[in-house]
Parts: sequence; C-alpha cells; structure tokens
Amino acid sequence: MTLIKEGNVVIDVSDADYGKIFVPSKKMKVFYNPRMKHNRDISVLFYDFWAKAVKKSENLVFFDGMAGSGVKGLRVLAETGIKNVIFNDLNPKSIENIKSNLKINNLPKNIHYNLYNLSFQRLLAEKQADIVDLDPFGTPVLFLDFVLANARKGELISITATDTAVLCGASQQNSQKCERIYFSTPSKNESMKETGLRILLGYIARTAAKYGLFPLFLLSYSKDHYMRAFFSIEKYKQGDLDRKIGHISFCAACNKRKVNFEQCFSYVCECGANLTIAGPLWLGNFIDMGFYKEIDGFVKKQNKKIKFSEKTKNTTLNTQQQLRAVQKFDNLLKFMKPLAAEQNFLPWHYNLHNYPNYAHKKIDQALQEIKGVRSHFDPLAVKTNKTNLFEKS
Amino acid sequence: MTLIKEGNVVIDVSDADYGKIFVPSKKMKVFYNPRMKHNRDISVLFYDFWAKAVKKSENLVFFDGMAGSGVKGLRVLAETGIKNVIFNDLNPKSIENIKSNLKINNLPKNIHYNLYNLSFQRLLAEKQADIVDLDPFGTPVLFLDFVLANARKGELISITATDTAVLCGASQQNSQKCERIYFSTPSKNESMKETGLRILLGYIARTAAKYGLFPLFLLSYSKDHYMRAFFSIEKYKQGDLDRKIGHISFCAACNKRKVNFEQCFSYVCECGANLTIAGPLWLGNFIDMGFYKEIDGFVKKQNKKIKFSEKTKNTTLNTQQQLRAVQKFDNLLKFMKPLAAEQNFLPWHYNLHNYPNYAHKKIDQALQEIKGVRSHFDPLAVKTNKTNLFEKS
Repeated sequence: MTLIKEGNVVIDVSDADYGKIFVPSKKMKVFYNPRMKHNRDISVLFYDFWAKAVKKSENLVFFDGMAGSGVKGLRVLAETGIKNVIFNDLNPKSIENIKSNLKINNLPKNIHYNLYNLSFQRLLAEKQADIVDLDPFGTPVLFLDFVLANARKGELISITATDTAVLCGASQQNSQKCERIYFSTPSKNESMKETGLRILLGYIARTAAKYGLFPLFLLSYSKDHYMRAFFSIEKYKQGDLDRKIGHISFCAACNKRKVNFEQCFSYVCECGANLTIAGPLWLGNFIDMGFYKEIDGFVKKQNKKIKFSEKTKNTTLNTQQQLRAVQKFDNLLKFMKPLAAEQNFLPWHYNLHNYPNYAHKKIDQALQEIKGVRSHFDPLAVKTNKTNLFEKS
Repeated sequence: MTLIKEGNVVIDVSDADYGKIFVPSKKMKVFYNPRMKHNRDISVLFYDFWAKAVKKSENLVFFDGMAGSGVKGLRVLAETGIKNVIFNDLNPKSIENIKSNLKINNLPKNIHYNLYNLSFQRLLAEKQADIVDLDPFGTPVLFLDFVLANARKGELISITATDTAVLCGASQQNSQKCERIYFSTPSKNESMKETGLRILLGYIARTAAKYGLFPLFLLSYSKDHYMRAFFSIEKYKQGDLDRKIGHISFCAACNKRKVNFEQCFSYVCECGANLTIAGPLWLGNFIDMGFYKEIDGFVKKQNKKIKFSEKTKNTTLNTQQQLRAVQKFDNLLKFMKPLAAEQNFLPWHYNLHNYPNYAHKKIDQALQEIKGVRSHFDPLAVKTNKTNLFEKS
C-alpha cells in the first residue's frame, strides 16, 4: 500500500501509478492527479464556506460523480461542514479504492456516504444533491447538459475544464474544436486565457439558459493547465443572456479591441484592417463581488469575536475552532483578492512583455502609469481601461 | 372503455379526454393526440422501410421514450418489421393504458416489449436502441443532448418539434426564446417556416457535433403545427459544420437574400439598408437524395417482381404481401417526391401571394416563368434560383 497525505486525509495510491513520471491518463487503474491539489484545497474551503456561512446548513449533500480515488469527497467529509457525500465512478477499481480510503481515514462519526458504480448521467437523473462537482478527464462540455438539466435554484455547481488549449484556440485544430464543442470562436493572442475562461463561462450560461436557469459566477479563474468555476443556480430572467453574452473584436493591426453586445457588428476596424472576432462569450464578472464581500465580512466579524474572547481570557475549545475556521476562510479571501481587483476592467488583458514602453519598467510603476491592476492569467498580464496606451496609432 | 382505431391498432382513449374539443395538454391523464396521426402514418412507413430495406434486419429495437398511450410503439409492432419496442413514460397512468392497449390488440406472436416508468434521461443512459424517437410535449431541445450523447453510428433518430412559433420567431418573445434555447436567431418573414426547420436541423447538427457525431437528414419537413426530422447518425468528419451551417441574410428593403458560410459577413445590404440575419442554421438538404433514390429503386424493383409473378400466374400469399409492402412504400415515396424536388434550390422560398407580378397567375404558369417548384412550407410558397425576379431594384 502506497499512502500519500493530502489535506486532512490519506489516500492509497498503489493503483494510481503514483511516483512515476506523472502524466494523468485514462489508462490509470484509479484516477488520482496530485497536480490538482491546489484546486481541491480551494474547493474544500469554498464548499465549507458555502455550507457554514451561506447555506448555514449541516445537511447538504455533495455529489462527487467522477470520484476516481475519492480524494475530493473524502476531503469534503474530513474538512468541511458537509456530512453527506455521494461517491460515483464508472470504474469498479475506483469503488474498491474509495472503500479502502474510507476505511484508512479516521473520518468524523456523524457522516454519511453512498457509493455507486454507474454512469454520471444515469446517477444524476436519479439523485438530488446540493453541491454538484463536475471534474471530468478532458472537456466538461459532454456532461454539462446532464448537470444543468437536473439543477435546481440555489444549488451550487463547480466545474473544472482541463481542455485549455481548445478554449484558448492554441492551434487551428483547437480553434475548430472550440467552435464544435463550445459553439464559440476563441482567439489566439496575449489575452487568450481570459477569452478562454469567458468562453467556458459563456457556454455554461448559454446551456443553463436553455433549461430556464442562469449561473451566478461566485468564483472562477484560470490556473496552470485548467480553468475552474463555482456558480450558484438562479432562475433565468428575461434579458439575462443579452446583458451578459457577446463578442470581443481584436484588431491585429492597431491592437484596438471592442466589446460587442449586439448580434450584428462591424468586422472591419476603424484602422481599415479586418478584425478577429472571439465569442460568443461571457462579458460579466468572473467573481461575484457581493459574495466576495460576504467572505470578507464573515472573516472580519469572526476575528472581532475572537479578539474579544481573547481579551476576556475566554479561550475555550469553541473559540479555538472558530479561530481555525477564520484562518481557513482568510486563505480563501486572500486567494480571491487579486481576482476581485480585476472585476472593474474591460474583459481582456495586456502582457507588458509585448510593449516596449513598459517591458523594462518595474510592474508596479507600469501599473501606476496605466492606472491598472495585475491580472491572474499570466505573470506579466495587466488590466487597464486606458486602452489607448496599448494601441498603435 | 372508449376505443378508437388508428392504422392497424385500437387505442383505449377513455383517459385521454377524447371527443371533447381537443387541445392536447400536459393535464391529460394519458397523452394521445389524434392530430398527429399523419405524423405517425409517415413514421411507421419510414421505420418499416428502414428495417426491411436499409438495415435488412428483424432484430431492431425501437425506443418509445415518452410513449403516452403507446400508440406509436403499438403501430411499430403491428405495422412494421420491427419486433422489439421499449415503452417508457414518467406517468404511471400511461403505463396502465399501454398495458391495456397491448392486451386489446391482436399483435403478432413473435414480438417483444418492455415497459418502464422512468425519466427519459435515466432510461436512455441505460438502454441501447436502434431507433430512438423523441416526441415530447413542447420543445425537443431539453432532451436532445440525452439522445445524442448516447447515440451510435448507424442509429436512426426521429424528432418532432411542436414549438414552431419559437422556431419561426412569430413574436419578439418567441424570437428571444429561440435564441435562448436553439442558440439561433429566427426571422419572421414569408420564408420563416423554412428558416425554422433549418434552425431545428442546425441545432441537431451542432449538438451532434459536440459528441463527435453528425446527422444525415434522410427526411425532414414542416407540417401543420409541427416539424419532423428523421436522421441517421454518422461519425463527425473535420469540416462538417463549416460545410453545412451558416446564416441567411434578408433585406427588408430590396428583398435581396444571401447565404453566408463565413463567421464574419456584412450586415448592410448592397442597397444600403440593414440586413436581418437568421441563424446559425442548416444550409444543406433536408431530404437525402441518395435515400430518396433508394426508396424509388426499391419500389420499382418490387413492382417488376410482382408484375413478373402476375404474368406467370404465380400469385402466392408471399407476392400478395409483397404487393402490399410495395404499395406502402410507394405512399412514402409520393409523400417525399415534392420535398425531394425542393432540394436543388436556395435555402428559402417566396410566397406568390406577396408579389403582384405573380399573385393573379395560375401557379403552374408562374412556376414556368420563374423556373421554380412548389415548396411544401405553404400553399403558395415557391422555390427558385432566379432571385432577381423577386427583388426590388
């Protein structure tokens, strides 16, 4: 038995070819990807906050429909206020592995779980959950309709997309695939990761709208070789798509860019060159600022309480626990802070490296000059509304 | 018990409010819509030809996933070479009704059937079939992904859409709904039914492409208040979408129309007016001419055989049966003939009633002048490639 520790759980990775030069593949006997640890770290924080502070419920059910080693569901049981997990995987070896992992971990007594060896689609048609995680090998597109056709108002959904080359249109073949599976045209340029995330979010929104629903994107981002989105489900309101979905036009000649909400718009730039059109894609925020402030407020309030009880020397076990909880959510807040700062800018970014005026300046100085902020999509990516500074006249 | 006869079967319609002023609704205890008899007449002919002449198999399985009274599946068992039907309906009353209808009909001895009381989605995730019929109350969009995610090469799928007002963009609200659920903009004008059918077919093709598949539309048409499509499933080939999906632009000022396969195209007409853009939609044929010729060839060959056996006075029971079969398929051929004639024209039609030059002429004379054919979408609809005759200069 080869055990590894992740978060508060241990996982038997004997069947996951762990320790060899690691490229996750469908051929693994049991799927476990150590490179996704950060994704899971953020996820369990997010789910925990959702259960404790948003839903204020101890009765939420978490759906881990492509569970692999079960690591995510196990961490949900071990590290969050969610006590009920549905584990499922089509691979019978996975079910054995999850059973063994459930045994070797000292999980809380008051938890419940169910294990299924069915197709994701089949199980979703039967089981209701409060939080559904879609984290397939490859594109989530092929499973998204099953998730959204069965979703209810107030449900939380999280999605991982690892087909970033497709979403970014990294090659002509990828670009064609993006059009085929996301019904959207990507654009290979310095802003392609942001365009890619917005295509993913746009596709989620368009698919939800089909079923009379609409997403509220609480937290979404691009990292390493994946994109991640957490969203709650709302009822579709007349005009939601018109307000949030559109196209971005890029001019390769003069670098002018434009947001287009209309169905018909010019494909010729003011400079005379033909524009490259990306979309349809999401033009709204990729962090919900109300939700961000909710975490901020929660952390501040708890900190105040703790300071008060420290002052009164009332450091019982309860406040110790509270302290740990606050520290946890403070980590989530820190992760979201730079993302939140990106929300008041146009839906693209510039890479300072590509602009001689800024390439050799310190990034903070450049940011001051352009009245901009860093963008999380790339180390030298910046966002600004002073677009003329980056255009050629 | 109130019985009615349709095709070769009788149906107990006691629970279907039959005989009252008839508006089909979800509130019916058991769903049966007598107005869809013609749809079912054509369907059983089509399925029978598919089994006998195309697949040449007696082992096909037919999936009647929203069976209602079971009338379609019963007729498949009673009138075609298909011996195995999966009946399903979410409504338990339907299951009772189907059971009773199976009893009161004197069905062939060698048939098989299964009855399920599950969701369409759930059952499709489990059961494989050779022919899947999707005939929901309202739009098929909400179920199409379940059908196509589980489809295999060579499978036959038939779909009915009754949301024609949406597909035709009959009102602004319908038009917005079309954009939301079909990801396509309709166009309310004299050609809107054809645009509507092409939006339906385009949506089927785009959804199939997502799953690495592509439809071959064997027969599709608009009739009364529904649209119908029969298609076989092929593997997706690089460029299929580019070759078949695009937009149509209409000029309300000069009546010029244009087919656009490119992503970017002008939204201003040569006459200076703004164009109305419909799509993305299907720009290929809505009848497969190879398939049409196959039916034609089959009927001719069988007729020849029968004439020969009549000449030789060899009129055994077998040739009697053959004769009936040929007459049946001749009816399918007759239904398809005018549709087949429409395939060599531009993807829109004109209504003679709207054009003073032709409104008072006999339709056959008008057709000669414009070198056109009748179009099945409306009684006075015609197709022609001499578009300049219908434009204002």
